[in-house]
Amino acid sequence: MQRVKTGITELDEMLHGGFLPQTANLVEGAPGTGKTTLGMQFIYNGITQYDEPGLILTFEEFPQQYYRDAASFGWDFKQLEQEGKLKVIMTSPEISRLDLENVGGMIETMANEIGARRVLVDSLSHFQKLTEDPVELRQIQYSFINALKREGLTALLTKESDAILGEAYSDESVAFVADSYLMLRYVEIESAIQKALLVLKLRGSDHAKDIRQFQIKAHGIEVQSPFEGQEGIMSGSPRRTMAESFVEAFVRK
Amino acid sequence: MQRVKTGITELDEMLHGGFLPQTANLVEGAPGTGKTTLGMQFIYNGITQYDEPGLILTFEEFPQQYYRDAASFGWDFKQLEQEGKLKVIMTSPEISRLDLENVGGMIETMANEIGARRVLVDSLSHFQKLTEDPVELRQIQYSFINALKREGLTALLTKESDAILGEAYSDESVAFVADSYLMLRYVEIESAIQKALLVLKLRGSDHAKDIRQFQIKAHGIEVQSPFEGQEGIMSGSPRRTMAESFVEAFVRK
Amino acid sequence: MQRVKTGITELDEMLHGGFLPQTANLVEGAPGTGKTTLGMQFIYNGITQYDEPGLILTFEEFPQQYYRDAASFGWDFKQLEQEGKLKVIMTSPEISRLDLENVGGMIETMANEIGARRVLVDSLSHFQKLTEDPVELRQIQYSFINALKREGLTALLTKESDAILGEAYSDESVAFVADSYLMLRYVEIESAIQKALLVLKLRGSDHAKDIRQFQIKAHGIEVQSPFEGQEGIMSGSPRRTMAESFVEAFVRK
Amino acid sequence: MQRVKTGITELDEMLHGGFLPQTANLVEGAPGTGKTTLGMQFIYNGITQYDEPGLILTFEEFPQQYYRDAASFGWDFKQLEQEGKLKVIMTSPEISRLDLENVGGMIETMANEIGARRVLVDSLSHFQKLTEDPVELRQIQYSFINALKREGLTALLTKESDAILGEAYSDESVAFVADSYLMLRYVEIESAIQKALLVLKLRGSDHAKDIRQFQIKAHGIEVQSPFEGQEGIMSGSPRRTMAESFVEAFVRK
Amino acid sequence: MQRVKTGITELDEMLHGGFLPQTANLVEGAPGTGKTTLGMQFIYNGITQYDEPGLILTFEEFPQQYYRDAASFGWDFKQLEQEGKLKVIMTSPEISRLDLENVGGMIETMANEIGARRVLVDSLSHFQKLTEDPVELRQIQYSFINALKREGLTALLTKESDAILGEAYSDESVAFVADSYLMLRYVEIESAIQKALLVLKLRGSDHAKDIRQFQIKAHGIEVQSPFEGQEGIMSGSPRRTMAESFVEAFVRK
Amino acid sequence: MQRVKTGITELDEMLHGGFLPQTANLVEGAPGTGKTTLGMQFIYNGITQYDEPGLILTFEEFPQQYYRDAASFGWDFKQLEQEGKLKVIMTSPEISRLDLENVGGMIETMANEIGARRVLVDSLSHFQKLTEDPVELRQIQYSFINALKREGLTALLTKESDAILGEAYSDESVAFVADSYLMLRYVEIESAIQKALLVLKLRGSDHAKDIRQFQIKAHGIEVQSPFEGQEGIMSGSPRRTMAESFVEAFVRK
Repeated sequence: MQRVKTGITELDEMLHGGFLPQTANLVEGAPGTGKTTLGMQFIYNGITQYDEPGLILTFEEFPQQYYRDAASFGWDFKQLEQEGKLKVIMTSPEISRLDLENVGGMIETMANEIGARRVLVDSLSHFQKLTEDPVELRQIQYSFINALKREGLTALLTKESDAILGEAYSDESVAFVADSYLMLRYVEIESAIQKALLVLKLRGSDHAKDIRQFQIKAHGIEVQSPFEGQEGIMSGSPRRTMAESFVEAFVRK
Repeated sequence: MQRVKTGITELDEMLHGGFLPQTANLVEGAPGTGKTTLGMQFIYNGITQYDEPGLILTFEEFPQQYYRDAASFGWDFKQLEQEGKLKVIMTSPEISRLDLENVGGMIETMANEIGARRVLVDSLSHFQKLTEDPVELRQIQYSFINALKREGLTALLTKESDAILGEAYSDESVAFVADSYLMLRYVEIESAIQKALLVLKLRGSDHAKDIRQFQIKAHGIEVQSPFEGQEGIMSGSPRRTMAESFVEAFVRK
Repeated sequence: MQRVKTGITELDEMLHGGFLPQTANLVEGAPGTGKTTLGMQFIYNGITQYDEPGLILTFEEFPQQYYRDAASFGWDFKQLEQEGKLKVIMTSPEISRLDLENVGGMIETMANEIGARRVLVDSLSHFQKLTEDPVELRQIQYSFINALKREGLTALLTKESDAILGEAYSDESVAFVADSYLMLRYVEIESAIQKALLVLKLRGSDHAKDIRQFQIKAHGIEVQSPFEGQEGIMSGSPRRTMAESFVEAFVRK
Repeated sequence: MQRVKTGITELDEMLHGGFLPQTANLVEGAPGTGKTTLGMQFIYNGITQYDEPGLILTFEEFPQQYYRDAASFGWDFKQLEQEGKLKVIMTSPEISRLDLENVGGMIETMANEIGARRVLVDSLSHFQKLTEDPVELRQIQYSFINALKREGLTALLTKESDAILGEAYSDESVAFVADSYLMLRYVEIESAIQKALLVLKLRGSDHAKDIRQFQIKAHGIEVQSPFEGQEGIMSGSPRRTMAESFVEAFVRK
Repeated sequence: MQRVKTGITELDEMLHGGFLPQTANLVEGAPGTGKTTLGMQFIYNGITQYDEPGLILTFEEFPQQYYRDAASFGWDFKQLEQEGKLKVIMTSPEISRLDLENVGGMIETMANEIGARRVLVDSLSHFQKLTEDPVELRQIQYSFINALKREGLTALLTKESDAILGEAYSDESVAFVADSYLMLRYVEIESAIQKALLVLKLRGSDHAKDIRQFQIKAHGIEVQSPFEGQEGIMSGSPRRTMAESFVEAFVRK
Repeated sequence: MQRVKTGITELDEMLHGGFLPQTANLVEGAPGTGKTTLGMQFIYNGITQYDEPGLILTFEEFPQQYYRDAASFGWDFKQLEQEGKLKVIMTSPEISRLDLENVGGMIETMANEIGARRVLVDSLSHFQKLTEDPVELRQIQYSFINALKREGLTALLTKESDAILGEAYSDESVAFVADSYLMLRYVEIESAIQKALLVLKLRGSDHAKDIRQFQIKAHGIEVQSPFEGQEGIMSGSPRRTMAESFVEAFVRK
């Protein structure tokens, strides 16, 4: 099956080729872990490498913030908008949801105008303001996700995690309906805070199981080798394994 | 006693032959652990290996999603429906519950039509929307389970777990009334996230007690050997045992 | 003092002979740990080994379920009912409670009819539906327990525990008024889930303090030797002691 | 200063002689740890060894239960009541509280009749039913405690702890106003559940700081030697210290 | 800058000379850790060593309790009151708060009468009864603290901590507005419960960072040397460091 | 891009030059960790080293407290105010928020008067009193932050953390909208409480990932070398690594 590549080589390898077409792909992380950067890179690479125009739906930040953030990675979002390959749309969960229910709504129109194939929704967590009932929230999010799929879009949905360092709880059940689930996490290793990336779920395909280190570099996210000789990485506070420690203390020295 | 085989050889061995007939079997797991895959495999193998037609009751996903997911494992659900051996029914907890209370309801009719012997309920967690009272919820679920048994069906019921990595709490008491209880869990081992399967309970029969590694492969779930030399597997964040670590550091090297 | 034997030899030894007569004995455990099996064995052995007829009060499962479950251990409950030595009564906390307050109520009548000396209440946790006020709940349960004692019965009361693996909290204060308190727990040992039994409390008598492994075998519960070389058993996720690990790695190998 | 001895030699030593006169002494513990036994022993020894008559205020159990429990240790409470040295009074927090506010109330009258010097209140936790407001609860308990002191009584007040094994939280602030605070706890040591006793606070006096093992024996509580070579005892789930483990594995063996 | 000495030599050294004048100094601890003793010692030493008269505001205990507690350390508070150097005032948060808002209120009058320079407020936690709104509570406490400062007083404010052994949470935000913050804590070391003292904050000055052991002796609090070779002291349940354990097991023995 | 330097050399290095202009920079910490000191130093260095006048918005403490605290570090804030380079404004979240929405409001006027380029908001946590709805709170804080940016200011916003020692949770979602996120934390190392500084996030730039020790010295905050040989620093209760412990015990000694 054709894959929707992120253009981040190692991540696409972890995904055994990329996301699946017309799927909803969740990227969860604490503040600063790089959810939005990953989302923008997905959109930017889609346009520039795979000729797949893209939408960005933002529920909080102004489009200017995306232009600025993208520019810091050398991605010229304003130019792409002028070329008719990108639309950054500031909207709200309420409006975008209603809009997608109607034929010929604004999002559909814009998607058609530029022939959009990808969408970044930043962030799905803002749907929480629509209702306090978790059951209703799940239904709303599920409908929204399906509406995006019906438009022929492959969606990357960011999701905010409150835990800076600590156990990972999926406090919203949206993870059950998403087609894939990527986790970005802070990990304390050797007195520094590193970033970890994990593909937990990829519906309809096998995927890498290892927890990879990654960095936000000058030109975007770079996925690196798996962690080694550590236990409890996903807790955020791992420990060097005993065997490793013995070897380091007695063999290498 | 005759057993209802899942057709997954190692799992049937863990169950000392399979589920018991006309029982309710709970499969709990976090998003992406493979609950629905296990359920579909139970239905598919039932039809193709044991000539036992099956129903799938879905409370959220559209039947198309099941066809697609099944197809990715090489299981042709559409064909089976055409052959009158499978029915994928999209319904709701409210409707299916009322339907089963009446003689000649839709589910009973369909079950009779295809001579169904198995049913996948995906997922039991959606019953939570019916009431906020845990006592009433348990009564509703218990009645629903018994209605399925009265239809002569052996049921596999999926149950969503919020904990990605971390302690396993049975937040609903339905586990007390289920006839068997299987847990699917993520486990971090050597900087990767593996999947674990455990049969915690099997009413009326002995069963394997070990925690098995499993994978979702091209043709479905494959149960593998037990974990070894690890402590705290069910916590999701185990540690290599000390004895193993000594041996690895000083003996093997 | 005369003891009320469970007929499970090792458990009776742990209890220094058995329960005390006309006492309320709490058996707490997670789903599948064997609370009901222990209760049925207490009733069955009472009738067949000690000539003490017994009642079973069930608040959820149908009597047929008990017949079936008992039969899987080779205990013929239907036969015992026909011989007038057993009564399985499906009732509710509300009804049984009111019934016991009246002279000549149904439970008293049935107990008298068969000369019952033992009763299994399965489970005390269903009293939670009577009130949300923990103080009132405790008073109701205490009255109920005393009513059973007044009938001359020795009661085994099952109590559901939500924690599968994890710390043991007594979320209801009924443990303070029970005469004995047995805990059944899951324990992960060497990548498998074992069962543990502990007598925490036995009013008016000394008792064994060790945490014993047990299994549900073809003819019921078998209590085995204590765990060895493990720390933190009651946490459900113990670790082999360091001394044991050294010995295993360096001495035995 | 004169001390009010418990008559349990090692405990009196831990208290540097005993409780102080006309003080309120809190004994907190989980079900089955021996709070009530310690309280009865305090009363019994007071009468038989120090010629100090005593009251027992019970808010839940019937006096018969105390007679029976005492008898199992060889203490004849009925006889002591007949000799006018003991009164077991079944009452309620509401009544006893109002009673003590009036000159010539029932408790005062009974205390005067037998010349009571000691009182066991079993348990202070039942005051929780009087109010849900923690501030008001503290005021009520403080007034009650002071009323007992005004009667010239030295009080032992039991307090229920919900945690079986696990961290000790003082969920009621009554510990701040009590003159002493004893904790009884379960501790898992070498695959068995032992009991631990700690004097945390003793207003106006120094006291032992060590955590002592104790047992409930045929004639009551016996305090034994401190634990050794263990860390985290008060967590209920201690670990043998590393140094101890090395010595055991390599030196002793 | 002139310092306000506690007169406890080692504590004054930890404070680099003492508290700063006209500041609010928080002393937090669990029941029995010695908050009130430290506060009384601060007042007593102020009067007898530095000629600084003092007030004690008590919101719960009667003045007699302070006389008695002080006497057990050899401090004659009644005499000091007669000499016009001390006032023990039993009041309430409501009254003392309103009183301090008025010129010529009772507290101001008494402070002026004896020329008070110090005040012990025992305890600030009682302000919780004034409001359930944490924002309002903080404003009230902040105003109260400032009123004391305006009177020219250096205040020691006790604060109750619910955690006996366990993590330290500042459940009230008053710690943010206090000028210094001392923590008294229980620590389990070698099967005994020791006391630890820590200066966490001292506005406008450097201070000792080490966690010191302390004892309540015949003449008050004695601060001792820091703990050594332990990790996790503030958790209440520290562990001897690995390096220390190796040395103890293999080198010293 | 031009950076806004804090003037704390090592911190500016960690920030790869400093904050970015017209950004909102969050500094979170427990009481006494030095949030306000860092903020004042940012303002003071801005004025005296980079000729960038500054505002301080305080929502609780009086300006006098800032003059006093600054003076203890040798920073003469009164003089700077007289020179027209600093304004310390005591206001409230309500007023400052409304004020910033109007052209020509008080804050804008003052900022223009002195040509302010920097602002310290102490603390953002006080916005919590405006609403109990976390969604509304986030919107209010986001608008407030943007208003400051529109004034051309680079903002340092302090944020209170309740956890003294323990896991770091971002209980307000403001961390998602802030441009940078600095964490100040207490860390127990070798029986003393040290302070740690971490740059978790810096939008639009790379930054140091290591956890640095820092101290509050006579002339302000001094950032020191990273921690070494410790695991779990951000938990507040780290442990020396095993390898380090071996080396210390067997190699160095």
